Amino acid sequence: MLEARLQNAVVLKRVFEAMTCLVNEVNLDCDESGLKLQAMDQSHVALVSLKLEDVGFLHYRCDRPRSLGLNMSSVVKVFKLCSSQDTVSVQNEDEGDLITFVFENNAEEKTSTFSLRLMGIEQESLGVPDEEESDVEITFSAKEFASIVNTLKEFSDSVRIDVDKNGVKFITNGDIGGGEVVLKPREGNAEDDLDVGVDVQVRRPVSQTYAVKYLVFFAKAASLSNCCKLSLTSHRPISVKFDILDPIQGESRSAAPKLGHFKFYLAPKMDDEEVDAAAEAMQTEGPKPEGHVKPEEDMED
Amino acid sequence: MLEARLQNAVVLKRVFEAMTCLVNEVNLDCDESGLKLQAMDQSHVALVSLKLEDVGFLHYRCDRPRSLGLNMSSVVKVFKLCSSQDTVSVQNEDEGDLITFVFENNAEEKTSTFSLRLMGIEQESLGVPDEEESDVEITFSAKEFASIVNTLKEFSDSVRIDVDKNGVKFITNGDIGGGEVVLKPREGNAEDDLDVGVDVQVRRPVSQTYAVKYLVFFAKAASLSNCCKLSLTSHRPISVKFDILDPIQGESRSAAPKLGHFKFYLAPKMDDEEVDAAAEAMQTEGPKPEGHVKPEEDMED
Amino acid sequence: MLEARLQNAVVLKRVFEAMTCLVNEVNLDCDESGLKLQAMDQSHVALVSLKLEDVGFLHYRCDRPRSLGLNMSSVVKVFKLCSSQDTVSVQNEDEGDLITFVFENNAEEKTSTFSLRLMGIEQESLGVPDEEESDVEITFSAKEFASIVNTLKEFSDSVRIDVDKNGVKFITNGDIGGGEVVLKPREGNAEDDLDVGVDVQVRRPVSQTYAVKYLVFFAKAASLSNCCKLSLTSHRPISVKFDILDPIQGESRSAAPKLGHFKFYLAPKMDDEEVDAAAEAMQTEGPKPEGHVKPEEDMED
Repeated sequence: MLEARLQNAVVLKRVFEAMTCLVNEVNLDCDESGLKLQAMDQSHVALVSLKLEDVGFLHYRCDRPRSLGLNMSSVVKVFKLCSSQDTVSVQNEDEGDLITFVFENNAEEKTSTFSLRLMGIEQESLGVPDEEESDVEITFSAKEFASIVNTLKEFSDSVRIDVDKNGVKFITNGDIGGGEVVLKPREGNAEDDLDVGVDVQVRRPVSQTYAVKYLVFFAKAASLSNCCKLSLTSHRPISVKFDILDPIQGESRSAAPKLGHFKFYLAPKMDDEEVDAAAEAMQTEGPKPEGHVKPEEDMED
Repeated sequence: MLEARLQNAVVLKRVFEAMTCLVNEVNLDCDESGLKLQAMDQSHVALVSLKLEDVGFLHYRCDRPRSLGLNMSSVVKVFKLCSSQDTVSVQNEDEGDLITFVFENNAEEKTSTFSLRLMGIEQESLGVPDEEESDVEITFSAKEFASIVNTLKEFSDSVRIDVDKNGVKFITNGDIGGGEVVLKPREGNAEDDLDVGVDVQVRRPVSQTYAVKYLVFFAKAASLSNCCKLSLTSHRPISVKFDILDPIQGESRSAAPKLGHFKFYLAPKMDDEEVDAAAEAMQTEGPKPEGHVKPEEDMED
Repeated sequence: MLEARLQNAVVLKRVFEAMTCLVNEVNLDCDESGLKLQAMDQSHVALVSLKLEDVGFLHYRCDRPRSLGLNMSSVVKVFKLCSSQDTVSVQNEDEGDLITFVFENNAEEKTSTFSLRLMGIEQESLGVPDEEESDVEITFSAKEFASIVNTLKEFSDSVRIDVDKNGVKFITNGDIGGGEVVLKPREGNAEDDLDVGVDVQVRRPVSQTYAVKYLVFFAKAASLSNCCKLSLTSHRPISVKFDILDPIQGESRSAAPKLGHFKFYLAPKMDDEEVDAAAEAMQTEGPKPEGHVKPEEDMED
């Protein structure tokens, strides 16, 4: 039996909604440590990794590990049953071919239940990039990140991110002209939950270009957290991390217990020469660098 | 002369808006007791019945009975002239072929007037189901009703409603799986106007299936009232009733004087056998049970 | 060097947004007195005139006069970089082929910059109607103006405006019927910034018909100002004027310093005979009266 009960059903709702534009059919891996999910987008350029810790739930029980094949559009449909005050319980009988979502509103004595048929989805072998030291790490407002990439996508398909100790530059160059958004390092405002400041840690300055479309997809998760962390290393995929908080009604969000995190990866765009060099350096199964893909490789995915 | 003057023009605006997805050309029957309207939707499956009482108006006068043929889309267009603080006066000269709407805002000394050409619409002979004792009656939040049917329409064309003394179940079964929304009987909150509770009166338990599409149309009237009343009887059309309130600025809605009511009817979906049995029991002219319609009958409509 | 720095970037954002449905490629004329723009819409029926005074800016410098060719869609895109608390600086190097917008948020130490390529746009010779005494002038809520023309466009392509000392009538006549919106002269409410009243100055009563579509375009500027001023004279273009205010955070809008104004012109619709008479009376290059256009004239535009 799997049973995972969460205080705020809307948190799980937003988690699933954040993924739908990136992936549709995915396996949710469950074991005693919590729920886990890793998947590449359909074009095999970006990777999403989700972890929800057992301790983040009101109640969590998973008798034996299992992999539940979910269609994201269906899951998002089911979460339309969820009201803002609901708790949610996710259930799966051992060997059962259904995943059941139970939304409960105790005050209103209302219960909504939906049992979704599970799917058989082939497990992809994914190369999640190793957790290694990054050249730079930027921690700032998740909402700001969403706003920047959503604006810059208007000008060009690509965005260059330059980071040094003076701050971060998001640079665009398109048909109508060029521009940049510059964030300088600064303290947050301890009294304002939403003002998390801009923290920039630099080991080596970085300048890398990414397909802005995928950053826009990643930014769908911005509503789950006050801040996000970008980790960049030359010729390596960028990672964009959002902590997933389970806010307690009426308390400040920074005090919210952490339920888990979203981590998104995207390989940089490169010149042809760079691609060849990077191909060796990178894990074979990791997100492919964009800009030069041999047809044979494409076939193997 | 017909002259009917209402404190809140927006109430009448919402009344007409609520009907547009169900019916387009209808006769508004006016006599000394108020305004009345009955019409079937174009597929002749659902029936809407509206009554606005003379006493609900600031001023009401109807010298002789008349039937005014209205095109709902045009009426809704005219009500775009109405601002939130406006009163409205509905006027029709005896033998006149115009219906005139006068919107007035005394504070701003603004008056908007529109005279709509009346239409000649053939009077349908309608079989509004008799007011008889229902097997069950459920009174609960109109907003909740709207939310439930709008969510369940995502999963299937049909919704089954099961009612017994433990509460109400709205049950759906679709391609991706099945689910239900359960409401238990409970008291409302006397101090919170919007929390009307869930009242369930059961003479005989009922389990009936309906085309959810029409319930969604009915739910357009949910903004007119705090609560709605569902009346169900086996093999008989469900009725969904909304009281129409004319709220006084700054006062609680439960104290609002009642202007009239909307009542919607929908025949249940049945198996073929059930249809034949029900056909006899039901009034010939009443809403047709869905699921089995003889072509000849269809031609006669 | 041109450099114009404004406290509220959103004001300039709205100025450009208000123009996009009317004109796309325009020359922004800059000299030491400020920024100026005049253009006809593509069908050469309406004319827009914008003036932003040097004194309205935090800082204004224009070493020598210049004309900057702008594509409005691109400018509006650039202003998506602007957040609600930003200041904006508009810059152009002498002989430079770029216009640069710098958005700064000092509190957040965030700077967004975009350099737009300038376009070579042929200067139209425009006949902005002379500033002469009008038959009538109506000053009232800009929001009310927007609401009226947006509602009346639903009923007919034209709107007739009748003004005498009793007030203003906006009259529509369409397929489904006819109506009017009447505003009576009244004092504003000194304590309510948004209630500016209705002021009607009449030298000679006027009754003129206009293409409502263009009035709807003009009304896009309504968000820039509390009130608008309509000036009408028989057989002459109507002018619709909006002052452009630069509101100070937390202060009442009526105290906001004036940055400049928008002025829109639209020739009246006329019968054929009237058109001939008006053609002589009007400036040859001014907005053309609608309703009768000789093909040869059309070719010359």
